[in-house]
Amino acid sequence: MRLTYTKEAQSTECRARAATIKTRRGEIKTPIFMPVGTVGSVKAVSVEDLEEAGAQIILGNTYHLYLRPGTEVLDVFGGLHDFMKWKHPILTDSGGFQFFSLAKLTKRTEEGVSFQSHIDGSRHLFTPEKSIEVQNHIDSDIMMCLDECTPYPSDHRATKESMELTTRWAQRCYDFWQQETNLRNNAFGIVQGGMYKDLRTASVEQICDIDFPGYSIGGLSVGEPKDLMMEMGEHTLAQMPDLKPRYIMGVGTPSDIVELVSMGADMFDCVMPSRNARNGKLFTSEGALNIANQRYQKDEKPLDPVCTCYTCRNYSRAYLRHLYKSKELLAYRLNTIHNLHYYMNLVGEIRQAILEDRFMAWRKDFYAAMEGGIQ
Amino acid sequence: MRLTYTKEAQSTECRARAATIKTRRGEIKTPIFMPVGTVGSVKAVSVEDLEEAGAQIILGNTYHLYLRPGTEVLDVFGGLHDFMKWKHPILTDSGGFQFFSLAKLTKRTEEGVSFQSHIDGSRHLFTPEKSIEVQNHIDSDIMMCLDECTPYPSDHRATKESMELTTRWAQRCYDFWQQETNLRNNAFGIVQGGMYKDLRTASVEQICDIDFPGYSIGGLSVGEPKDLMMEMGEHTLAQMPDLKPRYIMGVGTPSDIVELVSMGADMFDCVMPSRNARNGKLFTSEGALNIANQRYQKDEKPLDPVCTCYTCRNYSRAYLRHLYKSKELLAYRLNTIHNLHYYMNLVGEIRQAILEDRFMAWRKDFYAAMEGGIQ
Ligand SMILES: [Zn+2]
Ligand SMILES: [Zn+2]
Repeated sequence: MRLTYTKEAQSTECRARAATIKTRRGEIKTPIFMPVGTVGSVKAVSVEDLEEAGAQIILGNTYHLYLRPGTEVLDVFGGLHDFMKWKHPILTDSGGFQFFSLAKLTKRTEEGVSFQSHIDGSRHLFTPEKSIEVQNHIDSDIMMCLDECTPYPSDHRATKESMELTTRWAQRCYDFWQQETNLRNNAFGIVQGGMYKDLRTASVEQICDIDFPGYSIGGLSVGEPKDLMMEMGEHTLAQMPDLKPRYIMGVGTPSDIVELVSMGADMFDCVMPSRNARNGKLFTSEGALNIANQRYQKDEKPLDPVCTCYTCRNYSRAYLRHLYKSKELLAYRLNTIHNLHYYMNLVGEIRQAILEDRFMAWRKDFYAAMEGGIQ
Repeated sequence: MRLTYTKEAQSTECRARAATIKTRRGEIKTPIFMPVGTVGSVKAVSVEDLEEAGAQIILGNTYHLYLRPGTEVLDVFGGLHDFMKWKHPILTDSGGFQFFSLAKLTKRTEEGVSFQSHIDGSRHLFTPEKSIEVQNHIDSDIMMCLDECTPYPSDHRATKESMELTTRWAQRCYDFWQQETNLRNNAFGIVQGGMYKDLRTASVEQICDIDFPGYSIGGLSVGEPKDLMMEMGEHTLAQMPDLKPRYIMGVGTPSDIVELVSMGADMFDCVMPSRNARNGKLFTSEGALNIANQRYQKDEKPLDPVCTCYTCRNYSRAYLRHLYKSKELLAYRLNTIHNLHYYMNLVGEIRQAILEDRFMAWRKDFYAAMEGGIQ
């Protein structure tokens, strides 16, 4: 079914909004953060851990899932949901990002992207149509169009050319989705245009002219300075349709999310909470801490005094430091549970503040809580 | 408090027995398997996972815990239990085994063992008294005497010398435990004697002459042939006191446990279920399987059709194979949950069969179930 986007609140102080997205596999309350489950598992945690953290939708990576386990295996299970036992919505990327960051001998033509698997060296061609077809085998509730993510920096001419290719590919994805799938799932278009406002404007016009159920902004957080990312995000978000989901791909830090929500963004995904967790960097209401630090050796306090996650309800910083220093596998799970809970709680608080039209006051408190550092 | 051992059933067919051991932190129903929690965490699983698997007592390694986190940190938490949030009994080894297998520049004298930490190269001396003192800081419910584990092979003279040293150390441990601790915890003596029946007999006489609440057999499964291990186990077990716990250290495979129970053993510990799980080798009622095998690529069945663990209730062999091949952290947890459940279920079934005096029939079924191989 085509998803519906129902706006529940619009901040009177900024562009922040709260909404409910309905899919056939359940509702998504926005603003929302989507944990990244690369190959059919959000690293180090179980689906119950995700549910307890408040996750409503997770992300899968098409490139990884296509190579392993492959669509033949997924077909046996009727898609990724039953394979990994996640009952709620799944969003998949198009694979495009990994073709350039992970695969080898990648070559892009008008037709699509050819590449060599980083696992076994096998050669593959992904066209826009093929990307949607693979995502349809995965049976993800939201599929992303194949796009080209412009590297940073890129000159205006190369960025324009790349952005226009993304538009043509978006149309091909749309046509394939409409004509060759059963339309149980949704496809999102992706706005590109690099760090050029005129190109971002042109991309919004072209992509949002195609009747996708939602749109995302790609090509941010690719190495540009933070203020430039925010400038581009604000410029682009302001021109996107009001009554459709707006998804910022691959972003970001807690404060990135707070700021982009204030500019009108609804959906986020990022490996940061889980990757940082595995590296001992933990987010708290008082700021981030590094659990390996000697100062936590005998610290009986939980990671975050206001956190209600399984890790904080049960374990001390001293134990978490010990597990981390000892490279115990349990460390990765406990840390990831906490960081994901932190992110899900963050967007939950943001949503509540928007619903009560006190987002700017909440935002002020959010920053103020970090001023004293870790207690 | 001093533990009590209450025998509930004695097989009329063999030496197998079922009993309840009572400690101040709860009961242990024997025969029992004790998962190994080396540094304050049974690798890859949580305490809830252990409880769900039916674990009643776990093992901690004194050598590891002494080096990291160290007794100063454990003292803050009043011992290991509150540090790792395990409420049930804990047994600790003496550290002796790791001094020789992991530590460096290890030197044994009459006084004790000096060694260099494998972590930071620091030098330490463990005497029998020091080992009990450290275990008392850990506050384990069952502490093991410092012993010398005779390597295999060893000649009669060296084995005898080593066995007699173990006896003198056992007496020193007993004296320290009685005079210098609050006696809230229990100490077990360890029988040595290598692969010589006369020395095993002498060791049983000397060690069991000291009034420990329980005794263990050390120095088995150190590289000797299986039939020799069983011969030594049977010979030694037959001479040990009837109304005290008998613990076989570091053993073993499922069939080792079945056989040694039939000879009168009550307690076992081994890294095998958890280590094998991390290497993809999984125990089932139909025999062991290697989850990496291609034949499981599209296999929708659970690991073991008769297993009721979380992993088998939820996941297919195909998903577990995919996680394992992808080196996903979740693989280690799901595999470990299953293998520990298998071991705990194994001793649970054995116990029930003994209580109903049908152990030999159960044993026959146990082996018969493996004859057809993995279905
Ligand atoms: Zn927490
Ligand atoms: Zn199982």
